[in-house]
Amino acid sequence: MSAVKTVILAFGALSEPFWRDAVKEYEKRLSGLWPLSVIELPEARLPSSPSAAEISAALSAEAKAALARIPPRAYVVALCVEGRMLTSPELSAVMEKAAATHPEIWFLIGSSYGMDASLKARADLSLSFSRMTFPHALARVIAAEQIYRAAQISRGAPYHK
Amino acid sequence: MSAVKTVILAFGALSEPFWRDAVKEYEKRLSGLWPLSVIELPEARLPSSPSAAEISAALSAEAKAALARIPPRAYVVALCVEGRMLTSPELSAVMEKAAATHPEIWFLIGSSYGMDASLKARADLSLSFSRMTFPHALARVIAAEQIYRAAQISRGAPYHK
Repeated sequence: MSAVKTVILAFGALSEPFWRDAVKEYEKRLSGLWPLSVIELPEARLPSSPSAAEISAALSAEAKAALARIPPRAYVVALCVEGRMLTSPELSAVMEKAAATHPEIWFLIGSSYGMDASLKARADLSLSFSRMTFPHALARVIAAEQIYRAAQISRGAPYHK
Repeated sequence: MSAVKTVILAFGALSEPFWRDAVKEYEKRLSGLWPLSVIELPEARLPSSPSAAEISAALSAEAKAALARIPPRAYVVALCVEGRMLTSPELSAVMEKAAATHPEIWFLIGSSYGMDASLKARADLSLSFSRMTFPHALARVIAAEQIYRAAQISRGAPYHK
């Protein structure tokens, strides 16, 4: 397997300890494989019933902050419900190929209201886990688990369901 | 929303405390809505490199144990990767409709090697969360979260991503 650093960039903190522990477990398992770090940017503050313009401004501010952090040579995967659906071996193959020419692979998870077009435009791949809507915290856990699964597939290790 | 009991039937125990806590959190949130209980049946024992015949016998034994537990009037959803993909509002509508004529809705999660045809045949709906492969524990958490989300959609409550 090619060496590569993996990063999950998300907005807002994980409120429940069990979500944090689940992500930490996969960070631990990924060290030595495709080391994973999680970058948490603050979620833009919005009133409880925000207008479309307020949402748009918040998403744009979040995208700006995210784009400032993503290295130019990173391969970027944006997680969004309308993205491409891949099987786990297909994702592993995409990551293995990206790892050959990129030092880092970043997974972007939008905030409650989604992701600005400017951030989606930076992505090399738009990826959808499911037609279903998941909470952010769960999306983060699924991303961490799928990165670990992709690494295990890439190094030819057995990994049970 | 129509009253209905919900059940997740799965094989084997959750090894990590964070998975157990995540499922417990949704059980707590679902009480008073569509109360959720989890039934854990023992996973059939298999050698480390089982033959096809051994796997088939194990799945058949698991299916038998599961079928003995499922009430005749239950609406049954089998989770399998080749099932139908629904959005969260579509799943909520399916459950709301099932709740009108069934006292219980059961979600079946197979074991490491899958699910016997006899168990799939009992299902009113085969449902797929994703083209990706998830570990059982994560599938159980996703099922609990989607049942909670479906209940919230059904009662018209807002529920953030």
